[in-house]
Amino acid sequence: MPTAPKAPSAPRRGRPGYDQESVLTVAVAVFNRHGYDATSMGMLAEELGVSKSAIYHHVPSKGDLLRLALDEALIPLEAIGEDQRATTGTSIQRLEFMLRSTIRVLLERQPSVTLLLRLRGNTEIERQALERRRAVDRRVTHLMITAQQDGKVRADVEPRTTTRLMFGMINSLVEWYRPDGPATPQEVEENAIAMIVDGLRARD
Amino acid sequence: MPTAPKAPSAPRRGRPGYDQESVLTVAVAVFNRHGYDATSMGMLAEELGVSKSAIYHHVPSKGDLLRLALDEALIPLEAIGEDQRATTGTSIQRLEFMLRSTIRVLLERQPSVTLLLRLRGNTEIERQALERRRAVDRRVTHLMITAQQDGKVRADVEPRTTTRLMFGMINSLVEWYRPDGPATPQEVEENAIAMIVDGLRARD
Repeated sequence: MPTAPKAPSAPRRGRPGYDQESVLTVAVAVFNRHGYDATSMGMLAEELGVSKSAIYHHVPSKGDLLRLALDEALIPLEAIGEDQRATTGTSIQRLEFMLRSTIRVLLERQPSVTLLLRLRGNTEIERQALERRRAVDRRVTHLMITAQQDGKVRADVEPRTTTRLMFGMINSLVEWYRPDGPATPQEVEENAIAMIVDGLRARD
Repeated sequence: MPTAPKAPSAPRRGRPGYDQESVLTVAVAVFNRHGYDATSMGMLAEELGVSKSAIYHHVPSKGDLLRLALDEALIPLEAIGEDQRATTGTSIQRLEFMLRSTIRVLLERQPSVTLLLRLRGNTEIERQALERRRAVDRRVTHLMITAQQDGKVRADVEPRTTTRLMFGMINSLVEWYRPDGPATPQEVEENAIAMIVDGLRARD
């Protein structure tokens, strides 16, 4: 799990005890706290307790840190659509697989997905990431449309609006879910899928 | 609708053509764009094209603007729980009434609800508003628990987690819903209620 905090590695070449991965973990936390635009390399250096040149030893620029951090969210999100379970089976099974997988990535990579979802698109790196995110979303929208055409999703809902509402629910997890809270990731996943697929009403 | 833009009123006492309501509309937009903390009375004056003293003619401080703006969201949200339809009828009917009413307030008062949902709690005014928001949320959580105890909500979901997921869906509207987009407020309301109450799966 690349986003989990990692103990500083053994110093090398006299640099303080951080590797690229732990620099990235701290950078994501600081970006999420202050916003990417408002974060300077100086602030990151201060947070890490190292000099700016020690950070530049690991990554050439703030933009590269952002790109690496966003890849931690985007690569697994993009992989969902390539999985065999997203392309075979009935449309409703594929939809459920994609939703469950998305929830898992959100909970496992909460800091980097938070960064992705809060992007404002002010730089080219941000715009590229937002375009990749939209491509991921489009796959789910397309699957929802297919599932409705197949008669697996009720006919009386608008598939695009419904997909946005569903992503609203799922994406909200990055803002409120706490790994040390009462609900386990599996409970959250089951509760979300239960509501989305079958609704909350008790059935006789 | 207090949050709707309003044509500037006739100038009075030589002040530029704004009344408190239109100052508030602009203030909410600027708070949402830059964040409340980062917004100064000078920025508001510039946005309105008036002097700072012209704003102080309408409201004594930035905090008062915030309080008035948050009341535009909180007063109708609090009124939902006081409505007769929230306190009579079956628990699932009451729950549906509260959800539908919440969606309506979010769409009708989108700017001020956006401000409320993005609050960070750095000042006493913000903390009081967040406490009022939590009280509103607790009513829905309580009703969800009651509806499950009544056997109206399925027994296999955790009511608190489910309520949070549901609010995640509904609250996301303030971030993505566009009044000039393809979906009408009523369609959004019907689609959200359809998914929450009965789920997306087509039934034979």
